[in-house]
Amino acid sequence: MRTVYVNGEYLLENEAKVSIFDRGFLMADGVYEVTSVLDGKLIDFAGHAKRLERSLNALDMPHPAVLPDLLGVHRELVRLNAVEEGMIYLQITRGAPDDRDFVFPDPETTMPTVVLFTQNKPDLANSPAAKKGIKVISIKDQRWARRDIKTVQLLFPSMGKMMAKAAGVDDAWMVEDGAVTEGTSNNAYIVKDNTIITRHLGSEILHGITRAAVLRFAKEAQMKVEERCFTIAEAQAADEAFITSASTFVMPVVEIDGEAIGVGEPGAVVTRLREIYLEESRKAAV
Amino acid sequence: MRTVYVNGEYLLENEAKVSIFDRGFLMADGVYEVTSVLDGKLIDFAGHAKRLERSLNALDMPHPAVLPDLLGVHRELVRLNAVEEGMIYLQITRGAPDDRDFVFPDPETTMPTVVLFTQNKPDLANSPAAKKGIKVISIKDQRWARRDIKTVQLLFPSMGKMMAKAAGVDDAWMVEDGAVTEGTSNNAYIVKDNTIITRHLGSEILHGITRAAVLRFAKEAQMKVEERCFTIAEAQAADEAFITSASTFVMPVVEIDGEAIGVGEPGAVVTRLREIYLEESRKAAV
Repeated sequence: MRTVYVNGEYLLENEAKVSIFDRGFLMADGVYEVTSVLDGKLIDFAGHAKRLERSLNALDMPHPAVLPDLLGVHRELVRLNAVEEGMIYLQITRGAPDDRDFVFPDPETTMPTVVLFTQNKPDLANSPAAKKGIKVISIKDQRWARRDIKTVQLLFPSMGKMMAKAAGVDDAWMVEDGAVTEGTSNNAYIVKDNTIITRHLGSEILHGITRAAVLRFAKEAQMKVEERCFTIAEAQAADEAFITSASTFVMPVVEIDGEAIGVGEPGAVVTRLREIYLEESRKAAV
Repeated sequence: MRTVYVNGEYLLENEAKVSIFDRGFLMADGVYEVTSVLDGKLIDFAGHAKRLERSLNALDMPHPAVLPDLLGVHRELVRLNAVEEGMIYLQITRGAPDDRDFVFPDPETTMPTVVLFTQNKPDLANSPAAKKGIKVISIKDQRWARRDIKTVQLLFPSMGKMMAKAAGVDDAWMVEDGAVTEGTSNNAYIVKDNTIITRHLGSEILHGITRAAVLRFAKEAQMKVEERCFTIAEAQAADEAFITSASTFVMPVVEIDGEAIGVGEPGAVVTRLREIYLEESRKAAV
């Protein structure tokens, strides 16, 4: 049984609870981060901590007292649960006021709720899916407008994953106004004539921490990068396609809406990017 | 201290908790209803129960075993908390699986979470706000696309209420593609030349239970009703404006974006509609 963290306490997971008045539960008024663990160390912790602060600020959410010590809490959870490979999930909500109200509670009297737990995934780096690639379908993007804020409003991405499952594939790419926004829990990319193409940053997509690292590594390796919109038709005609996220790193996409991408197998660019990302991330892990 | 209901148990509110793995907390994977209480009786319970079932079905959410007995649970909470006037909040989530996953949990092993609590509001019918009317601002509608499903994804409506507060007014009307969708937690109406105008049903707005009742009463009273889009400019030029919801019933709007509506006071149509609604609802309460 896991040991998890709830508001300053390390608890057994079956004793870890929050009030029914928590605004995370009643109003999806919460933000989160997922940080990967390789070799028992945290991947790009600084990037996740920075984005967390951005999400809190974007929602005028008070900073919890534990914020400066989050690295310590992450490390303690890794230690307590002996995580060699996996993820740490962190969620902060606006806390549990005395009653339900659309108006934000007074930050003087209602403290934010802070929850962290680990997920052991022994095959995270050596993933079988990364060797054969994943298949995706396209679906209409029906999420709220501020996807740059990493909130727990994940019902539609969850529905998207179920649509993918129902279609016999692994994930869904969301499309808005004719252009791909992103995957249900990852950023989306195509490769054409050795140029890596991914949607530019904006409120339409999450500003992926893995995205930033991968684009940096790609540029350092002299690969061409274009940040712009692309369509499903353009993706189907691409040489390669892939996704990035904290928990999948760089993952090849070999089929979109039933059309094979390139030869229908992970290509050279995505394979190289995954290698570079894992190598550099392990080196920089804390 | 209130007595609340959580998964079959009647508990003191400070002991009422849900698992940190509850999908309501982690993914906003939950639906809700708010039913008003007048004279210790439930207003339009059948309407709320029917919409709840619609929301559950729209999300492929399993029906909790308590569903056929919800009226009994509502009544027991009214009794235990001696509610004469107020609201009962009900939330159902997809429950707490063993771990966080975008894929829906197996309904055979993960039971839905059911939470209910009361809110005492002695001035609900005899509301001071109803006598002078409320002021609203318009804001851009940034919610997800399926507002006809009453989910707990309420972060943007909550932000909207805060924008209204910051502007020194009571609420916000959301605007999409030039037309008013609805208020942050209510349906929006205008009155022009004795015709009641409110947006037609669709996935863009909540299918208000109070909306349905008010339109029915209006038609019975020989008032003209048009269900169609309207703009903020049209609203500002209207004779009257108002909102409806389970907790505000029929509430006059006397100012939109700083412009007085009509003479800037509750008009004859909204005043009459509120009277009819309260009278008929009290008669039909259970």
